[in-house]
Amino acid sequence: MRTIRVPLGARSYDIEVGRKRLAELGARCLDLGLGRRGVVVTDSTVGPRYGKRVLSSLHRAGFEASLYMVPAGESSKNLQQVRKGFDHFAGLRLERKSFVVALGGGVVGDLAGFLAASYLRGIDLVQVPTTLLAQVDSSVGGKVGVNLKSGKNLVGAFYQPKLVLCDLDVLKSLPAREFRAGMAEVIKYGIIHDARFFGLLEKNRRQILKRDGEIMTRMVARSCQIKSDVVAADEQEGGLRAILNYGHTIGHGLEAITRYGTYLHGEAISIGQVAAAHLSERQSGLSPKAVSRIRNLFEAFGLPVSVSLGASQERRLFQAMRLDKKVSDGALKFVLAERIGRVRFGVSVSDDQVREALAQVRA
Amino acid sequence: MRTIRVPLGARSYDIEVGRKRLAELGARCLDLGLGRRGVVVTDSTVGPRYGKRVLSSLHRAGFEASLYMVPAGESSKNLQQVRKGFDHFAGLRLERKSFVVALGGGVVGDLAGFLAASYLRGIDLVQVPTTLLAQVDSSVGGKVGVNLKSGKNLVGAFYQPKLVLCDLDVLKSLPAREFRAGMAEVIKYGIIHDARFFGLLEKNRRQILKRDGEIMTRMVARSCQIKSDVVAADEQEGGLRAILNYGHTIGHGLEAITRYGTYLHGEAISIGQVAAAHLSERQSGLSPKAVSRIRNLFEAFGLPVSVSLGASQERRLFQAMRLDKKVSDGALKFVLAERIGRVRFGVSVSDDQVREALAQVRA
Repeated sequence: MRTIRVPLGARSYDIEVGRKRLAELGARCLDLGLGRRGVVVTDSTVGPRYGKRVLSSLHRAGFEASLYMVPAGESSKNLQQVRKGFDHFAGLRLERKSFVVALGGGVVGDLAGFLAASYLRGIDLVQVPTTLLAQVDSSVGGKVGVNLKSGKNLVGAFYQPKLVLCDLDVLKSLPAREFRAGMAEVIKYGIIHDARFFGLLEKNRRQILKRDGEIMTRMVARSCQIKSDVVAADEQEGGLRAILNYGHTIGHGLEAITRYGTYLHGEAISIGQVAAAHLSERQSGLSPKAVSRIRNLFEAFGLPVSVSLGASQERRLFQAMRLDKKVSDGALKFVLAERIGRVRFGVSVSDDQVREALAQVRA
Repeated sequence: MRTIRVPLGARSYDIEVGRKRLAELGARCLDLGLGRRGVVVTDSTVGPRYGKRVLSSLHRAGFEASLYMVPAGESSKNLQQVRKGFDHFAGLRLERKSFVVALGGGVVGDLAGFLAASYLRGIDLVQVPTTLLAQVDSSVGGKVGVNLKSGKNLVGAFYQPKLVLCDLDVLKSLPAREFRAGMAEVIKYGIIHDARFFGLLEKNRRQILKRDGEIMTRMVARSCQIKSDVVAADEQEGGLRAILNYGHTIGHGLEAITRYGTYLHGEAISIGQVAAAHLSERQSGLSPKAVSRIRNLFEAFGLPVSVSLGASQERRLFQAMRLDKKVSDGALKFVLAERIGRVRFGVSVSDDQVREALAQVRA
């Protein structure tokens, strides 16, 4: 097991990465001094599989705890589920010292996190992410929230958990496509911050795809460490945190124009990162060899690196990118790589330059 | 004009108290470096009266700003209005640097504050409270939120504004009953923290009831200063902040059992504070003379100091008090006065002792 400390003053917390972590949840909540009563928010996929194990761990440690299940899928990340969740919490008579366990992927973490952030103006939160994407990305950093009809993640809070528990055994039951999608964020950490880690992924891809061995602990822990370093330096996204959005401007745009029905998030940002690498070759001096290594690594993990875009779809893509939160005063801003392991953020790029990069990833 | 600095590190802000402040809003927002686009959230009472003045102040300073009006009254403080507000913000294409002005009483401040706290995970907020209660209490301290069917203020956040602008001229148009209700919180500050201020209120009550003269600036500014001192010492309500709840355990209970239809908040806590004074006489050594001074001052400002409670209503009152957020592990906790200007918090009190105190305020 590895422990990563996220240093945020009074809001500091640990991320634990290892095997058989679910069974330890109760004991760890006890260590943290959490209140007597908790609720485990989960979804209709994860709840039936892991809910009992989590509840019995909490009960063994002396907590009063129950499951609250929402339908699986992104469509649960909305204000109606928020209202239902609050009503459920009120029915359970949760108090200020009560706590919420988010057991699931990104949707559950974001929804349960926002419920915890806002109920009684904030009660304790423990994240137990069950997908690779949630373990290496969404459970770390304190971003929680839900979607509006007019856009994703438009409502939410910065709210830090008391603990993040990443159980690697849980990843074995993950569908292959979801596991691969999670790898897109893992690879991103190599590109934005750690060339050695990028090399490690290249070297160990077979072992990683088997989801086994010490490499998994190392990979998830290093990903969390990089995200945590960035978040600690810039909790509220004033500057540096923007580098985490490498590949996301185009990625989010692709998700939006396909109405979130074609690509998993990781797949969309895989294409986005390859496009951003091409853009970086022109704009920030990334070497052609590095562009190839980036493209090849995404491909090696079975991720898409090209997209078929008609003229009208491309127009809609630009519209969607302009609506994104990352746009300020109308200019498209990109995170661009100078080399693998080093990026710049906030680079203004013309539409023509983006169009050229898109041509490089056209299927 | 007086300025009170609320010292909360990076989240520090000023409260400005004085005349003709509304017209200064735009200039002050410019000083703060707020983004180009703002929305003024107000209600159907305050909007028609002061909306134009506020908008033109913002426009003069070069901001893009529009009004967003919600129905006046506590019933707007719910999750449905939250959803509508978010959709409105999305329609306005508010960006991360956009800002929200809360122009109104406590309901508007709490609702608009929660919208600002949660939209895009938090955008800038300026409070322009237009009732005495909001100026001296709800606009200071960062508590924002809405009600659920199962209870008041169950959902919300701690979210500090960038500025609070208290315009005393606005108070002149306040209905007399609302002005008096606001005085209940003002008197509270004297009881919990400042015997000299309590004396000042006794001496100047005629002038205060005329809502005129330098005494108004002094009174509102001193109230904000006391609240700010308490909040700065305990932003997230871990301890000391509890003293602000003097009179509120019984007060909230009375509001709840009358379904928020009989008493204004200030009226309910007036009765609550007198009852708590009687309880303090028995439990924490408050002198009989101090109890009389407390009762007399509330009466002098036309506030109720007694209540007619049947046996079944008293039972429901105890139930309501137990459901209150301020109860932990089932024990009723009170803030009690040792003398005027000094209180203790978290005092466990038996139901019988509370019953005796209630007998002293029975009409």
